[in-house]
Amino acid sequence: MITENQYFDGQVKSLGYQTTAGKSTVGVINPGEYEFGTAQKEIMNIIEGELAVLFSGKSDWETFQAGSFFEVPANDSFKVKATVQTAYLCQYR
Amino acid sequence: MITENQYFDGQVKSLGYQTTAGKSTVGVINPGEYEFGTAQKEIMNIIEGELAVLFSGKSDWETFQAGSFFEVPANDSFKVKATVQTAYLCQYR
Repeated sequence: MITENQYFDGQVKSLGYQTTAGKSTVGVINPGEYEFGTAQKEIMNIIEGELAVLFSGKSDWETFQAGSFFEVPANDSFKVKATVQTAYLCQYR
Repeated sequence: MITENQYFDGQVKSLGYQTTAGKSTVGVINPGEYEFGTAQKEIMNIIEGELAVLFSGKSDWETFQAGSFFEVPANDSFKVKATVQTAYLCQYR
C-alpha cells in the first residue's frame, strides 16, 4: 500500500511505503517555512532542491543541498525553509 | 504546485514538481510488473528498493539498485519489475 499524506494545506505532500528496515516517505516541499514534529527518529535526505533547517534549541539555520541528509531525534521538532520546490526521502529508523 | 499522479490502479503513485532544469517526479512502485511509455527523455534514479528493467528491443532484464539510475529516450517504452516497494526520482530532461 502506498499512503498519500499532505500537510500545511497541500504545501507539503508525501507518499509512504515500507522497507525491510522501516517506514519511509518520499515527498515534495513547496517554497515556504514549515515546522515539523517527530514521533520517531527521522533521517531526512534531500533528493532535489535544498532546505534550510533550524534544529530545536539552535539559533542558526543550516542549509542542506541535494545529496545530503540530516537526522532529527524522536519527540523533537525542527523548522525547514525552502526557496524552490524540494524533494526529499524521509526514513523512519 | 505539487501534482499527484497514479497509474495501474494506484500500484504506482508519484508527486510532480518543477526544478530549474526541468520537471521531476518522486514516486513509489508497488511489487509487480508494469510497462511505461515516454513522451520525453527520462532519467530514472532508484531511491530505495530495486527495479528490474527490460528496455525496448532487449531480451534480458537488468537490475538497478538504490543509488543507481538508467535513462530512457523520448517516445520509447520500457518494462519494470519490482519485488519490494521501490521509491524513485524521475527527471524529465
